Amino acid sequence: MSGIARDKEAAVGRRTWKQQAWLLWALALTVAGPLQALAADPLPSWNDGPVKQSIVDFVTRATTEGGPGYIPPEERIATFDNDGTLWQEQPVVQGAFLLEQVRERVKEDASLAKRQPFKAVLEGDVALLSAMDEPQLMELFAATHAGKTQDEFAREVRAFFQTARHPKLGVPYTQLAYAPMLELLQYLRANGFQTWISSGGGVDFMRAVSEDTYDIPPQQVIGSSLKEKFDEGNGNPVLRREARVDHLNDKAGKPVGIDQHIGRRPVFAAGNVRSGGDIQMLQYTKEQPHPGFALLINHDDAEREFAYAEKNDASLKAARQGGWTVVSMRQDWKRIFPEGR
Amino acid sequence: MSGIARDKEAAVGRRTWKQQAWLLWALALTVAGPLQALAADPLPSWNDGPVKQSIVDFVTRATTEGGPGYIPPEERIATFDNDGTLWQEQPVVQGAFLLEQVRERVKEDASLAKRQPFKAVLEGDVALLSAMDEPQLMELFAATHAGKTQDEFAREVRAFFQTARHPKLGVPYTQLAYAPMLELLQYLRANGFQTWISSGGGVDFMRAVSEDTYDIPPQQVIGSSLKEKFDEGNGNPVLRREARVDHLNDKAGKPVGIDQHIGRRPVFAAGNVRSGGDIQMLQYTKEQPHPGFALLINHDDAEREFAYAEKNDASLKAARQGGWTVVSMRQDWKRIFPEGR
Repeated sequence: MSGIARDKEAAVGRRTWKQQAWLLWALALTVAGPLQALAADPLPSWNDGPVKQSIVDFVTRATTEGGPGYIPPEERIATFDNDGTLWQEQPVVQGAFLLEQVRERVKEDASLAKRQPFKAVLEGDVALLSAMDEPQLMELFAATHAGKTQDEFAREVRAFFQTARHPKLGVPYTQLAYAPMLELLQYLRANGFQTWISSGGGVDFMRAVSEDTYDIPPQQVIGSSLKEKFDEGNGNPVLRREARVDHLNDKAGKPVGIDQHIGRRPVFAAGNVRSGGDIQMLQYTKEQPHPGFALLINHDDAEREFAYAEKNDASLKAARQGGWTVVSMRQDWKRIFPEGR
Repeated sequence: MSGIARDKEAAVGRRTWKQQAWLLWALALTVAGPLQALAADPLPSWNDGPVKQSIVDFVTRATTEGGPGYIPPEERIATFDNDGTLWQEQPVVQGAFLLEQVRERVKEDASLAKRQPFKAVLEGDVALLSAMDEPQLMELFAATHAGKTQDEFAREVRAFFQTARHPKLGVPYTQLAYAPMLELLQYLRANGFQTWISSGGGVDFMRAVSEDTYDIPPQQVIGSSLKEKFDEGNGNPVLRREARVDHLNDKAGKPVGIDQHIGRRPVFAAGNVRSGGDIQMLQYTKEQPHPGFALLINHDDAEREFAYAEKNDASLKAARQGGWTVVSMRQDWKRIFPEGR
């Protein structure tokens, strides 16, 4: 035994009963600390009001054993749309990626700039991409990415996120996740919910950044997909992307994608006003034996983000009919993006 | 303060230093106990030998930080075939379910017994069903289950598992999971692996029992599936099964299903000799930058289970070429089914 070890042992022997008790107390605080922090305010970027209260009430009921709204942990499935719900969608990030991909290809072969769909993408630039919906983007994906292996594609996506900047806000796209929604994801997880993305966007595109951006692993991301083909590749098997859409995870396709991946009805879902793409997911979540919770985000904050509406107002109408909770970004969110990003 | 509480407090005050130390020691044991139990023998139903050793070696390398075979926790994905790998497949359980479904329907409408595919199922009985492969079963599924909601289907499956008994072994099918494989699942999970099923069987069929049988939640089950359709159902939305196969999770379809659901290449996979249905999944897992582990189960134990081979021996040939670990049920397993089941 070294001299230092002997000294330590002697010191322990000298500890009084009071010192021992103090040590146990300190140990207890170490455990209780994180719980107390959560109890303080789990959603600091949300303004106090009926929207924030309804979220907290739902989670409290869901986790109160023996209460009428109790939901067993294994059924606490929460699904979130991505574009416009978890991060900004002006432009849709996958559209910006596609534009960069097309530009790269035109550098290699200038004749492409005269051919569709490349021509439309290049001419329209960000304005066109902002107006595109996810089915259109998926068609473009199929046209431009066929034949690539999944690994090659993932590398290109990661490279894009390292260098690309939002055209107006000037920061990497992964820094444009909404602070209130990051808190909501964390709050739900702390209460035993499993958080999933269910988006119309390409599943492989989102998976490249979902873990770092939202703490959501790739296996909890559901999205639109292209058909893929197993290629034995002379002993080094790979999966290749085909020029055909496999699943379009939008509108009525969202509950289908959720059932295929999860096999359970979510009890919490969040989407946003723009294309009506989340209506069916929110209906599917809200209308069920369990008291499901449906959250719809309305982009009404031209000052701090963007203000835009839906052609026929279908999402807001469905929200009124179904008793969903509607978030006004202007009123309900204290801040839009994380501070000091 | 009640009399009992006062007495308790006084007792604490009277505790000597030695008693305090003993309490801390007992507390430490409570934590260390489960770890020690695992260290003892995580796979007691496996006979000692090269197969068991290779599994333990792989898991030890995968979890040794700084070592050459280390695998970060988020990449520890393990996928298991179900029929013949996790539980018995003589007959394929989904075939027995189908037979019962067809019998029920013939009771309601006797003319069905003369029509295909019902006639073939009824005439062939268990013998035919044992010979059927999963693609054929999925076709029958499509023919017999179209129009049902997912909830209705799940109820029928659960009812089947409650009453059905294996024709030879006389016990519920869920009691015919292999003891060594249940231990392996548990051993992998205790070492930070996420365990998945990737089977040619119907995904919704397996999900009804995966949690109770294997501790694998429905969202970690990948299988063959029918197309489904969202039905608004006058405010009570449901998903209906269609008479078309959506995905056939067999052979080259297995790596595709795995990529669609997980988005990551497994580092551990297990399948079995019979139809060659697991070859591509095992190749996809074994051949990669990470040192993947491929396990192939050979049913060579006529005495304790069933002995059967593969027409062209393709799985065993692929195992030799790829350096997979082959399990002889006769030699490598101490017991087949859990004791006292």
